[in-house]
Amino acid sequence: MDQVDELIRVGYRVRADRANAQDLARAIALEQTVELPENQLDEAIREEVMGEVQTIENDPVFPGCQRVRIAYRAGLAGGGLGVLFNLLYGNVSMYPGVRLLDVDLPDSLLAEYPGPRYGIAGVRGLLGVHGRPLLATALKPRGSPIERLASMAEAFALGGGDIVKDDQNLADADLDAFRRRVDACAVAVERANERTGRRCLYLPHLAGPDGSLEKRAEFIRARGLAGALVCPLLVGLDRARSLARDYDLLFMAHPALSGVYTQDGEQGVAHHLLLGTLFRLAGVDISVFPAPGGRFDVDAEQCGAIAKALTRPLGKLSPAFPAPAGGMRLDTVEALVRAYGRDSVWLVGGALHGHAGGVAGGTRAFLEALRERFDERVKPPAEDFASACELPSSGRQAIQTLIAARDDFRWQGRDDQVYKTTQELGFRGVRRVELVGRHGEEAGFELRYFELEPDGYTSLEKHVHTHVLIGARGEGVLVAGEARQILEPNDVAYVAPLEVHQLRNESGEPFGFYCIVDRERDRPMPP
Amino acid sequence: MDQVDELIRVGYRVRADRANAQDLARAIALEQTVELPENQLDEAIREEVMGEVQTIENDPVFPGCQRVRIAYRAGLAGGGLGVLFNLLYGNVSMYPGVRLLDVDLPDSLLAEYPGPRYGIAGVRGLLGVHGRPLLATALKPRGSPIERLASMAEAFALGGGDIVKDDQNLADADLDAFRRRVDACAVAVERANERTGRRCLYLPHLAGPDGSLEKRAEFIRARGLAGALVCPLLVGLDRARSLARDYDLLFMAHPALSGVYTQDGEQGVAHHLLLGTLFRLAGVDISVFPAPGGRFDVDAEQCGAIAKALTRPLGKLSPAFPAPAGGMRLDTVEALVRAYGRDSVWLVGGALHGHAGGVAGGTRAFLEALRERFDERVKPPAEDFASACELPSSGRQAIQTLIAARDDFRWQGRDDQVYKTTQELGFRGVRRVELVGRHGEEAGFELRYFELEPDGYTSLEKHVHTHVLIGARGEGVLVAGEARQILEPNDVAYVAPLEVHQLRNESGEPFGFYCIVDRERDRPMPP
Repeated sequence: MDQVDELIRVGYRVRADRANAQDLARAIALEQTVELPENQLDEAIREEVMGEVQTIENDPVFPGCQRVRIAYRAGLAGGGLGVLFNLLYGNVSMYPGVRLLDVDLPDSLLAEYPGPRYGIAGVRGLLGVHGRPLLATALKPRGSPIERLASMAEAFALGGGDIVKDDQNLADADLDAFRRRVDACAVAVERANERTGRRCLYLPHLAGPDGSLEKRAEFIRARGLAGALVCPLLVGLDRARSLARDYDLLFMAHPALSGVYTQDGEQGVAHHLLLGTLFRLAGVDISVFPAPGGRFDVDAEQCGAIAKALTRPLGKLSPAFPAPAGGMRLDTVEALVRAYGRDSVWLVGGALHGHAGGVAGGTRAFLEALRERFDERVKPPAEDFASACELPSSGRQAIQTLIAARDDFRWQGRDDQVYKTTQELGFRGVRRVELVGRHGEEAGFELRYFELEPDGYTSLEKHVHTHVLIGARGEGVLVAGEARQILEPNDVAYVAPLEVHQLRNESGEPFGFYCIVDRERDRPMPP
Repeated sequence: MDQVDELIRVGYRVRADRANAQDLARAIALEQTVELPENQLDEAIREEVMGEVQTIENDPVFPGCQRVRIAYRAGLAGGGLGVLFNLLYGNVSMYPGVRLLDVDLPDSLLAEYPGPRYGIAGVRGLLGVHGRPLLATALKPRGSPIERLASMAEAFALGGGDIVKDDQNLADADLDAFRRRVDACAVAVERANERTGRRCLYLPHLAGPDGSLEKRAEFIRARGLAGALVCPLLVGLDRARSLARDYDLLFMAHPALSGVYTQDGEQGVAHHLLLGTLFRLAGVDISVFPAPGGRFDVDAEQCGAIAKALTRPLGKLSPAFPAPAGGMRLDTVEALVRAYGRDSVWLVGGALHGHAGGVAGGTRAFLEALRERFDERVKPPAEDFASACELPSSGRQAIQTLIAARDDFRWQGRDDQVYKTTQELGFRGVRRVELVGRHGEEAGFELRYFELEPDGYTSLEKHVHTHVLIGARGEGVLVAGEARQILEPNDVAYVAPLEVHQLRNESGEPFGFYCIVDRERDRPMPP
């Protein structure tokens, strides 16, 4: 599959008359790819790298504007959503009067993005609720005691609500405070679920110092929760994608900060492209956006376009739920039904919290209004999260606790592996056992055992990742840089980044050692 | 230090007459904190959480607009730049006609942000160049063969240039391609530096799939480079901060995508706040922004404000370099000197690449123009990166290769530690040795040895992080959940997330085992 030959077709609206639009379009095509004047480019770069202006037409809506379509080589956009977004709009975001309207991605590039893990079908499968829109709410206000947030969540679940999420303002700087709060709300929702026999989902807000996001995601999973609320534009769009993938999370996305992208109709990024297509590429299952009639500046057409972008065919990506929010009231139900239909999540705030019957009463009233208009079907929820997923899980699961040693440095449930599959770097007489890290364990490292027969040696190589070794059997030699060290049982050794190293067995007996490495690591290079 | 009592004062410009501005300001104060109508709030939340409108004044520049100042509790903004940005502008970004102008952060919050690692003084120290603006360029265009990029870098360094960075369009999807390209350019610049006796810095672009950024940052450091180019708005603002901190990197920031924040004068975020203050909080040492006269839509006043925000007093944060870019030509030198003065980095592109004398000739011509106007002083560059830093390094350094075992399960250079500093969770007779991970080693895990005397036991506890154990001496019992396993030498065991566990020595001899854990991990909890 040669991406270089496939094209990404991008639509912009530019504020210019036809004659100037030609120059501007050309400037965009250069700016976004080579950033040099065309006369400084050689033939190959012009042919293979530079963007190409395809069409320029009068904008059917905005007088004095033109619609420009530019094609870029798909090979320029590999490597995540940051790189893709940069190609589409990085520098021209600073041009006056250039708005990014839409993008048509080729299949080769779409294949890099598995998209929503659950999607509409998966979220419904998790809940066991079919045939009607889903009802969601947010825990708020920030500053409330944990018990109050937990009882709010419980009341919503008891009222029959489907999804309760943290308000996007709920963000504990401290990891332990986050765990306490999430645990309390999860307990409350679980208690309610036991009473109702349903599965209301609780989605905590995945926010905080960047370095703590993995720990928070791990806690969410370990605590048995299906997913999280995330603000992709605050944590980073590709960062969100990466977290959703690594932690098997259902993601409800909040549009915080999206106004800077979308608000100015003549510049920035179209609503549907940002909150629809790009969020879906990031793996978002439910995309929250402000609905007309609330306190935000949006119109019905923009919202319809977002909903369409979330659900229209897009490579092999599952459709995601549109989730209108803001100003959702019982007296606007008819309009919401018309605008979003069955496959939507209604995120209702004030109308539940301010309801005369409390949160539970408000939830019941809303559900009643939905059931009057839709043919609700309730099925048993999916047995476990994985069975509701549209995507295979990343393989994190609980596993064998004891890997018992046998007498000859072999282990139960662990076979010998080949040391390396290619002879490129050279080695001799090496046995390898993958003890921990390749069998579903959750850890940032792997533990292996290597054994060298007499005169055996490992590859002479270097890499950025480090080795930690523990001598286990016999005596061997560690060559590392200029040094030569004898390694005997229980000696510990550390091989620093890019240090050229090799293990050798110069004795007449087997030499065995444990080796610990980071799970994510680079490939060895020759010295 | 009680952040709750300290205030963040935030300035917005709102498009409204005086009477409506009052309501709008109140709405912002609610939106950004509690997201509920005031009548649904209890007294404590109103007092301690809700934002407070402080002043409303006519905007001195924009007719029909008001300047609003709102105070938020500093405690709401802890936990990184994503959380802070959300408080300042998350939801109101979606309001019509509300622009974020400036922010005054209290010292308690500023203390969370060490800021630029090098800053102006540190970058100068690294280079050994004082008294004049620094000259920088970008390697481009994308699609050029590696050798051409490398020879471009070499020519710039031979011409006496100070900093050569990747173009922000240079982004290899593949990690190994990135390493090959970076290595080739680094070799070329090092070769030039040997000839000139100077230290030209090469900064590769830190971009690509989010999950690969750590590996790329590690490679940059391991390759002996001081830092990188980063697009904070593409990788995520707090993600950038976190990478700069964890990898001791000098960061030159590129403003890609910043136009969506800044372009619309009535909405979005002021240039100086985004590219100045927020980037500086993220640890940026050099902030690139488009200068007037180039192909971007900016004016001199905005650029002046960015430069000021980068250099004005801000807690204990070092000042960062403003780096005007775009349309920098020999015939605009006078204007640039007047606008930015001595402490600036001039990022020059086309004027070098298109120079009749080639890149080396163009570089020399620019430096000559600078030396005519400034009193250049050249000193020997700092011996190593750390000595030029304004901040202490995060402690990554090369260390002891062999930690040799003694007969009694003690190790050279590693003392016994107390098992735990509090008796909160209960334990008895436990000896602990930190073998690898706390002595400057670069690894995502730690290796420890624990030894229990007869009748000794570790705390009965649980945590999200997992344990991997290797039996080393004697015989012990691992209690994990419902299971009880005997652990003997070379048995390997895995303790899953949140599994309640304990190690016990029920024998008459010492029981010792290795334990491997993730370096970043949560604290143990009682069962």
